[in-house]
Amino acid sequence: MTDFTATRAMFDLPQGVIYLDGNSLGPLPRAVPERVEKTIRDEWGQMLITGWNKAGWMDLPARVGDRVGKLIGAPSGTVVMGDTLSIKVYQALASALELRKDRTVILSDSGNFPSDLYMADGLCRTLGPDYRLKTVAPEAVADSIDESIAVLMITEVDYRTGRKHDMARLIKRAHDAGALVVWDLAHSAGAIPVDVSGAGTDFAVGCSYKYLNSGPGGPAFIYVAPRLADKVRPALSGWLGHEAPFAFDLDYRPGAGIDRMRVGTPSILQLAALDAALDVWEGVDMADLRARSLELQNTFITRVAAKCPDLLLASPREEGQRGSQVSFRHEHGYAIIQALIAEGVIGDFRAPDILRFGFTPLYLSQQDVALAADKLCAIMADGRWNRPEFHQRAKVT
Amino acid sequence: MTDFTATRAMFDLPQGVIYLDGNSLGPLPRAVPERVEKTIRDEWGQMLITGWNKAGWMDLPARVGDRVGKLIGAPSGTVVMGDTLSIKVYQALASALELRKDRTVILSDSGNFPSDLYMADGLCRTLGPDYRLKTVAPEAVADSIDESIAVLMITEVDYRTGRKHDMARLIKRAHDAGALVVWDLAHSAGAIPVDVSGAGTDFAVGCSYKYLNSGPGGPAFIYVAPRLADKVRPALSGWLGHEAPFAFDLDYRPGAGIDRMRVGTPSILQLAALDAALDVWEGVDMADLRARSLELQNTFITRVAAKCPDLLLASPREEGQRGSQVSFRHEHGYAIIQALIAEGVIGDFRAPDILRFGFTPLYLSQQDVALAADKLCAIMADGRWNRPEFHQRAKVT
Repeated sequence: MTDFTATRAMFDLPQGVIYLDGNSLGPLPRAVPERVEKTIRDEWGQMLITGWNKAGWMDLPARVGDRVGKLIGAPSGTVVMGDTLSIKVYQALASALELRKDRTVILSDSGNFPSDLYMADGLCRTLGPDYRLKTVAPEAVADSIDESIAVLMITEVDYRTGRKHDMARLIKRAHDAGALVVWDLAHSAGAIPVDVSGAGTDFAVGCSYKYLNSGPGGPAFIYVAPRLADKVRPALSGWLGHEAPFAFDLDYRPGAGIDRMRVGTPSILQLAALDAALDVWEGVDMADLRARSLELQNTFITRVAAKCPDLLLASPREEGQRGSQVSFRHEHGYAIIQALIAEGVIGDFRAPDILRFGFTPLYLSQQDVALAADKLCAIMADGRWNRPEFHQRAKVT
Repeated sequence: MTDFTATRAMFDLPQGVIYLDGNSLGPLPRAVPERVEKTIRDEWGQMLITGWNKAGWMDLPARVGDRVGKLIGAPSGTVVMGDTLSIKVYQALASALELRKDRTVILSDSGNFPSDLYMADGLCRTLGPDYRLKTVAPEAVADSIDESIAVLMITEVDYRTGRKHDMARLIKRAHDAGALVVWDLAHSAGAIPVDVSGAGTDFAVGCSYKYLNSGPGGPAFIYVAPRLADKVRPALSGWLGHEAPFAFDLDYRPGAGIDRMRVGTPSILQLAALDAALDVWEGVDMADLRARSLELQNTFITRVAAKCPDLLLASPREEGQRGSQVSFRHEHGYAIIQALIAEGVIGDFRAPDILRFGFTPLYLSQQDVALAADKLCAIMADGRWNRPEFHQRAKVT
C-alpha cells in the first residue's frame, strides 16, 4: 500500500495553501533545490566541460527517460527526455507520417490541447498541400477513423474538462484501419495508470512539469514503440540524435532506437530537477494513486454539488471517464478562481468559462479537498468574486 | 575601458585550473547559484503556478532576449530565447525558405557545425524532393552564391579552426543574388563584436552556454530582422508563438514579430541562470574584449610556435580572420589534450586531429595563457601524452 503521508512530506508546499493546480505546474519536491545546487556548484562549477562525462550529463536524457518510462509502462530504452512537448509532438507526427507515406491526414479532436493542433498544422504546411489536419469533436473520434487517416493524434485527458479517452480502444481501432497513433500523455503521466506497451501505441509524448513535478519548463518526453524506433528517420535531425555525435560527420546517420529522437544539447539543470523530483515516485503504486485520486475528486464533486449548485460540472460524472482533474463551468469563472486564490486555494481558469481543479494524492488529503470545496462554496454564497480586483486579467490566465 | 579584473572576480573558477574551453561550456558566474535557488525556492516553491505572472516567467524569453540582443547589435524586441540551437536553425531555415518559395537550395559550408547541416537536411527531406542542401568548402562560399540559392546558412566562426567568415560581405553578396541569410552566432555571441542590424542579416541564431556562460543546456536565441518578422509563418507553430496563447483557439494565428518564434513552455531554471550570467556583461565594451582576446591568442600562438613546433597551427595566422579560439593539429591530439587536462589546463579535442583553445578575456589573463602554453609545450617535450591512460576515449570528446 502506498504511503501518501510519506509522499506528502517530500513536497515543500507553502503554509496555508491548498494546491489544486498540480495539473498545470506541480509543486516543489524537497529534494530539488539541493540537487540543482549540486549540479550547478559541484558539477558545472568544478567539472566545467568535463561534466558531460564525469557527471553523466550526456546520458541524463536516457537515464531520466527510463525513470519516466516506468510510470507509463514503457520498457527501458524506449523513452528519452528533451525539448518541449510541442517539439516532441512535431517529431512524433513527422515520424508517423513518414511511416505511412501513402496517407496524408492527421486526425485529432477539438478537445486536444491547442499547441498539438498548431504543431500539426505547421507540419502539414511544411509537408505540402496534400497534407491536412482533420479535427472532430471528441465523441466523434472513433467513428472518424477510416483508411484515409495516416495518424491519430490524441491527448488522452482533456485539459479543460478532464474527460478521458479510452485509448486502448482508439489505438486498436486506428491500427485496424492502418493508421498510426501519437498519444499525448500531458495529463496522464503521473496522473493515472498508463501502459503504452500494453495499449500498443506507436508514439507517446508528454511533459514533466505537471504531475511529474519537474518545475517550470521541465523537459518533455517521447516514447517510440521498439518495433518502429529503428525505422523512422527524424525530421528534426539534430546532432545528439546522430549515430556518432562526436565524429562530427557532415552527413546525418540516425542513432540506434530512441536515441535518434534527441535533437540538441539537453537542458541539464531542468533534467537534474526532474531526476530529483522523480524520487517521490519510488514506492508509489499507480493503482493506489488512481483510487485515491478518484476518492478526492468524488469528495470535491459531491460537496460542491450539495453546497453550490450554480457551478455546473464540466467533467464526466462517471469517475472512470475522468483523468485526475475536475472542472466546473461558470460565466464568471475567471473572477471566482481569483477570489479562491485569495483564500489560499489555487485552482485555475481556462477560457471561456472553465474552473479547473487537479487532484494529486501525492500531496493532497481528503481534509484539504473538503476545505477547498467549502471555501469555493463560501465565495459563491457571498458573491465576493464580484469585487473589481478579481476581474483584472493577468497575462497568463 | 573595460575592467577585466572585475569581470574575472565575477566567475567561480576551480583553484588551479586554467580554463581554455569557454568556447564549449562557459564557467560558472558567481551570481548564478543564488539566482537559480531563488527561482526554485521563492518563485516555484512559494508562488507555484502564479509564478508565470508574479515572477515574470512568461516574459523571461523576451526580456533575456533583449539582453542578448545588446551583445549582437539587435534592437529591443528582435531576439527571443528558447529551445536549442538546432531547433532555432530549423525555424530560421524554414522561415527563410517560405519567404523565397521560388528557390529550393540551402547553401552552407563544410566548416559549419554538423548539427546545422543535419537540421537543414531534415528540413529539406520534410519539404520534399525539390529541396536540397548544398555544402561547399568554406573558401568557396562566396563564389557559390548565385540566383539558385534560397538561403545562405553560415556559422561565422568555424568550431574546429576558429576561422572567421566575413559575414558583412557574404550577406551583401547573398542579398545581391536575392538569397536570404541565416547566420549562426554560436561562436560569435560574446566572443567577438557582432552587429546583426548593421550587417543586415535576415536571421541569426546562437546558443548561450558558450561565451554567454548560461550553463549546460542553456537556451538558444533567434533574431529575425524587423522587416521580415511579421511576414514569416512559423513551421514550428507552438502555442507560445500564438497571438493569444491563453485564448486556446483551435486555429493558429502567429504572434506579433519575434514572439512567433516562441514554441513551447520555456525552461525557466535555465533562463534564470542565463539572466544572472548576463550581469557579467554590464560595462563590458566589445571592442575592448576583442582587443584583449587577440592579445591572449597571440601570446599563446607565439609561445607554442617557439617552444613546440610539432603542433601545427590550424587557425588562420592573420588575427583578423580568427574568432576567439586558436586550434592546432596533431595526430595524437586527443591524448595530448587529456595529458593537458591532467595538468589543470582545460582545452578540448575535435575529431580527427584538432586541439582547441578558447580565449575569453572575461576570466583569463596573459599569465594564465602563457602558463597554459608552457604546460602544453612541456607535455610535448617529455612525451607524457604517450601514457596509456591518456588514450582512453570518453563518450563525449
